[in-house]
Amino acid sequence: MNKFEEKTIKTEKIFEGKIISLQVDEVELPNGKTSKRELIKHPGAVAVIAITDDNKIVLVEQYRKPLEKTLVEIPAGKLEDGENPIIAAIRELEEETGYTTNDLHFVTSFYSSPGFADELLHIYITNELTKVDNPKPGDEDEFVEVLELTLDEAKQLVTEERIHDAKTNYAILYLHALEGRE
Amino acid sequence: MNKFEEKTIKTEKIFEGKIISLQVDEVELPNGKTSKRELIKHPGAVAVIAITDDNKIVLVEQYRKPLEKTLVEIPAGKLEDGENPIIAAIRELEEETGYTTNDLHFVTSFYSSPGFADELLHIYITNELTKVDNPKPGDEDEFVEVLELTLDEAKQLVTEERIHDAKTNYAILYLHALEGRE
Repeated sequence: MNKFEEKTIKTEKIFEGKIISLQVDEVELPNGKTSKRELIKHPGAVAVIAITDDNKIVLVEQYRKPLEKTLVEIPAGKLEDGENPIIAAIRELEEETGYTTNDLHFVTSFYSSPGFADELLHIYITNELTKVDNPKPGDEDEFVEVLELTLDEAKQLVTEERIHDAKTNYAILYLHALEGRE
Repeated sequence: MNKFEEKTIKTEKIFEGKIISLQVDEVELPNGKTSKRELIKHPGAVAVIAITDDNKIVLVEQYRKPLEKTLVEIPAGKLEDGENPIIAAIRELEEETGYTTNDLHFVTSFYSSPGFADELLHIYITNELTKVDNPKPGDEDEFVEVLELTLDEAKQLVTEERIHDAKTNYAILYLHALEGRE
């Protein structure tokens, strides 16, 4: 399924960071002309829709430097090299929220922004949570606060744009759709 | 709402492209330590859930160089400098599909990937489409094919991961949720 494929003529590597790298590819277009594509490489990420025994959604509030503001999001994190997404999801859930689970279901996966980045995000769901006594610490430069909200409270945060990112908006819509069918 | 704010100590500009730019900020963390943040600046984007008179979703198939594969997506494009998102949405709809509308409703907006990029995506919906006789051409390096699918056909493409990006997965879930409530 590679309709309109753009063959790489030349790759210029611009930046190799801790999380992302950037390259500019010169490509041959389907009509034989050439163009340039600015491409971000990312290891991929996982996120968890975690529902407590009293039917609340576990969310984390954290500062997002690219936006210069604090967002409320479902727990998430990036994949380590070659890591199985479900293992990464359990790790990030524990590090960010202090919960663990042995019952995690796949919801969906999607590319966050396929026009310029290859980040693939995998979303899981669980309603079997247990508190970990001494949870693994997260990254030392990561500061989060855990919130547990009802679906209605979370919808209100969507309205206020305090929940305002692709994976979390998707998660809230997913729970809304589930509820409509129960 | 700037809990856990990270103050910028220094900004290093790495790359300024046609679509994205990249900088690395040295930041002061809430605990007084410092860290680095790799940040992509993006002008923002719009997307349209466009429904035809016979209740089909208008989608475009295009090659995505970052993924080295072809995806099926709702029509979308990036904002031009200072552009009103609703004007951009009408422009992209016409350029990519040959349809126009004078009835566009806001659905939601979200940051695509707030960990490393500031891209904000605005999604609109319309079921009032008219064909344009001589639609404006799109970007000269953009090649798309238009598909009109039922919701069930689109859901099948989600399963096959031919629909596999944040905005389009959100759109299909949104239509699914609407249908469950009608």
